[in-house]
Amino acid sequence: TGVIRLRAMAKAGALAYPIIAINEADTKHFFDNRYGTGQSTIDGITRATNILWAGKNVVIAGYGWCGKGVAMRARGLGAKTIVTEVQPVRALEAAMDGHQVMHMDEASRIGDIFITLTGDVNVLDRRHFDVMKDGAIIANSGHFNVEINLKALETMSESKRNVRRNVDEHRLMDGRKLFLLGEGRLINLAAAEGHPASVMDMSFANQALAVHYIATRDERLPVDVYDVPREIDSEVARLKLASMGITIDELTEEQEKYLTSWEEGT
Amino acid sequence: TGVIRLRAMAKAGALAYPIIAINEADTKHFFDNRYGTGQSTIDGITRATNILWAGKNVVIAGYGWCGKGVAMRARGLGAKTIVTEVQPVRALEAAMDGHQVMHMDEASRIGDIFITLTGDVNVLDRRHFDVMKDGAIIANSGHFNVEINLKALETMSESKRNVRRNVDEHRLMDGRKLFLLGEGRLINLAAAEGHPASVMDMSFANQALAVHYIATRDERLPVDVYDVPREIDSEVARLKLASMGITIDELTEEQEKYLTSWEEGT
Amino acid sequence: TGVIRLRAMAKAGALAYPIIAINEADTKHFFDNRYGTGQSTIDGITRATNILWAGKNVVIAGYGWCGKGVAMRARGLGAKTIVTEVQPVRALEAAMDGHQVMHMDEASRIGDIFITLTGDVNVLDRRHFDVMKDGAIIANSGHFNVEINLKALETMSESKRNVRRNVDEHRLMDGRKLFLLGEGRLINLAAAEGHPASVMDMSFANQALAVHYIATRDERLPVDVYDVPREIDSEVARLKLASMGITIDELTEEQEKYLTSWEEGT
Amino acid sequence: TGVIRLRAMAKAGALAYPIIAINEADTKHFFDNRYGTGQSTIDGITRATNILWAGKNVVIAGYGWCGKGVAMRARGLGAKTIVTEVQPVRALEAAMDGHQVMHMDEASRIGDIFITLTGDVNVLDRRHFDVMKDGAIIANSGHFNVEINLKALETMSESKRNVRRNVDEHRLMDGRKLFLLGEGRLINLAAAEGHPASVMDMSFANQALAVHYIATRDERLPVDVYDVPREIDSEVARLKLASMGITIDELTEEQEKYLTSWEEGT
Repeated sequence: TGVIRLRAMAKAGALAYPIIAINEADTKHFFDNRYGTGQSTIDGITRATNILWAGKNVVIAGYGWCGKGVAMRARGLGAKTIVTEVQPVRALEAAMDGHQVMHMDEASRIGDIFITLTGDVNVLDRRHFDVMKDGAIIANSGHFNVEINLKALETMSESKRNVRRNVDEHRLMDGRKLFLLGEGRLINLAAAEGHPASVMDMSFANQALAVHYIATRDERLPVDVYDVPREIDSEVARLKLASMGITIDELTEEQEKYLTSWEEGT
Repeated sequence: TGVIRLRAMAKAGALAYPIIAINEADTKHFFDNRYGTGQSTIDGITRATNILWAGKNVVIAGYGWCGKGVAMRARGLGAKTIVTEVQPVRALEAAMDGHQVMHMDEASRIGDIFITLTGDVNVLDRRHFDVMKDGAIIANSGHFNVEINLKALETMSESKRNVRRNVDEHRLMDGRKLFLLGEGRLINLAAAEGHPASVMDMSFANQALAVHYIATRDERLPVDVYDVPREIDSEVARLKLASMGITIDELTEEQEKYLTSWEEGT
Repeated sequence: TGVIRLRAMAKAGALAYPIIAINEADTKHFFDNRYGTGQSTIDGITRATNILWAGKNVVIAGYGWCGKGVAMRARGLGAKTIVTEVQPVRALEAAMDGHQVMHMDEASRIGDIFITLTGDVNVLDRRHFDVMKDGAIIANSGHFNVEINLKALETMSESKRNVRRNVDEHRLMDGRKLFLLGEGRLINLAAAEGHPASVMDMSFANQALAVHYIATRDERLPVDVYDVPREIDSEVARLKLASMGITIDELTEEQEKYLTSWEEGT
Repeated sequence: TGVIRLRAMAKAGALAYPIIAINEADTKHFFDNRYGTGQSTIDGITRATNILWAGKNVVIAGYGWCGKGVAMRARGLGAKTIVTEVQPVRALEAAMDGHQVMHMDEASRIGDIFITLTGDVNVLDRRHFDVMKDGAIIANSGHFNVEINLKALETMSESKRNVRRNVDEHRLMDGRKLFLLGEGRLINLAAAEGHPASVMDMSFANQALAVHYIATRDERLPVDVYDVPREIDSEVARLKLASMGITIDELTEEQEKYLTSWEEGT
């Protein structure tokens, strides 16, 4: 998300040197967010709580790439998945993917585990805590530690104690207990080890190759924010496939020609 | 794919009136291609052959939205899925989604069922037919009827007979039989009923609302090819969700503000 | 289920010759019921209605092998699955498999598609029809045509008309329409082609080998109802695997010895 | 597996008091082995290695309840699953469930991660280590520490060093490195926390209720090994469902009568 700021700086003429926005590379955000965050979020919650996922009602707030990844993995472990969203197209996609989609107000009453991945503030707020089941588990894997309204939770809590590493039990006035994981910070970093190496390798490869690209160009790249060149993105994917022992097809001359003729609309 | 031609016409100044390219709407191609083609391709092959999908090696050529949909559904029915691709990023995505990824030359030896969805020509060619197993089933769900090299298959065949509606048995010189479905035309149209109504409804809604949009504007839209306005896309998703009895969250004022501040990079 | 009657006859001394109960063979009921009924039930409903499964609330009554198969396949096509059961252990298994489990009284209000596979009568009864959504689809894949209370449905209906092959629209007094498929008979037989050949082959192989077994024994088999001999069951599985091009491991002498020592508890 | 020994003792008249074999309860072995071992095995390997499961070739030796659980969860995390078996019916079930099934000799060349759950010795032996890929990961989740031939691995290794908690790198003579997890002991105990509480609760409930059953009977139970009474099994499932907030259907009088009439074969 730092890219947004950099683009603003570029617009304002405040950039000192050219930037290639690695995060926009397909081999970065497709894989990092979906497969990396997907698995490591689940992993963090498992390490923190040792809960069994099978049969649990897992509420996932946000169905961007991260939310998709987490929903996919939670289901892969036998959970019943509930997705909340504010964007209709994404909500529809979640429904078509077989997840239950509903208001957070409704989901709050059902969920055993809540995971926020929206990039926005107070996605879980006082009115949600108010109706959660005794024993509900709350975690964030989205944006800093702002997605869960921690202040509201504190205010509602009669007492709070750490019951296990990364697990804080909040005892509410009415006797219910809610379990906050990792103090609301990114749970895959707080309680697990972040993304596995075999996801980060692609991000680092993009960085290395992008720096190489800037350094070895004949002319200096004008100061601006750039997308990762498509060739670098493809090259990273190719290298990764090779490391997995996978080789893929190449277009025949005939196929290349056919495709080009179509794309040109001739 | 007609859009490509229309854009070429626009460029050449040959368009007579403004066009809104419905196919680019999220509520069209996300759903139509993935869920619609995914299910109806499987359905077409099932109706044509009455095969059991469980345990079959299903080779899917192409991992675009259509290929993804078919791979997802084939696996959902218990098949072992093999994906072939020419684009490294897509190939990697297929591998990360748990599909086997390999050369078509290799997949040809393993597959029980072959489905082409690449948008290119001769994806299944003589050298593939040469090594396929006796009894292999071949279908296309991509682009016209050019993805399978029908002429090559004819040439290789000693005899051909229709053994079931939409199933032609090609007996090769070496005694093997290959079964071509629906004469290589789109199998979901040839052997099933195309997309279900609950997918087409969104496409038609986009069309209706786009025409309405053109007709009710204050000023005439200049002659060009346009994307579907984002509001229409969202509106279609919202209507569809409502028809499914699903209501979703809305941003609170606080959340809207937070998001905007981020997006503006301030 | 004819086996129950035959065992009763054996007990009563009313059998005229020895019987081998093919249905009890693992290679029969494991595969036939789960994979065969699973796929063909979905197939029957698809052919009858051409609905899109993705995003639908599918209510499956009964979580025996057939119900498991249907639930697994419905989910594989993107549906949200709801299971109803009367046996606690099965209900728990359904929940742990990630399905929603609830009373049919509750499921009746939510379901888009209902499928009965319980082996019992009136699983869908008047009180369920009373609360179903307008447009709900009702099918049976269990036991004869007794699982849906057809008489109650008739009585409640103001009018009835056939709107598509195998689809009868029942218009209720309050204006809602319910769609009954295949007149409540087994939907995979009514609207599809029953089990695929590659499931039936195992059942027939069991029959053939069992007859061979009876015919080629040195002594006549006493008149009674027998299970399929374990060797026949294994042999059918072995033949099937071979037909799929699959070879499997064999125990080494050392492994065989280790296993035996354990099983003997020495 | 202690039950085998107890039954042998009962046969030999060596038992001192009656035993109820908890392990045979449905609510024990169905859930414990499939969902418990399934998740916790994956968890143990993740904690030991922090690998990404998506896209990995995971070889699962044995397709009993434990193997099924692990295969299901590995796939749920995006892995490509390969199953090896010695029993044809199980092997066929694995194939129909969409897993690749092959000889361990072949799987050894492909696997990124190997997990043994067979209950037998030396399932991974010298000839397998001989052909494994550089970097392969080896873990056991079956029977003591006998499933992997540790002595053979030692003998083949030029050097061995601990590279991470629970990960021993074996450097073979030819330069390849194999990573043995948890010294070949049960990986869910060695590197994770064993079964989650919400699986063990059912096992303990069976134990408590079985002891209660023995203690509160009018007559003393004769000395022998007994199955868990079906009522206790059902009661545990019922209690578990209640704790999950799930209520299920009950047979109506009419349904009970119908079922009984069938089962009696009248």
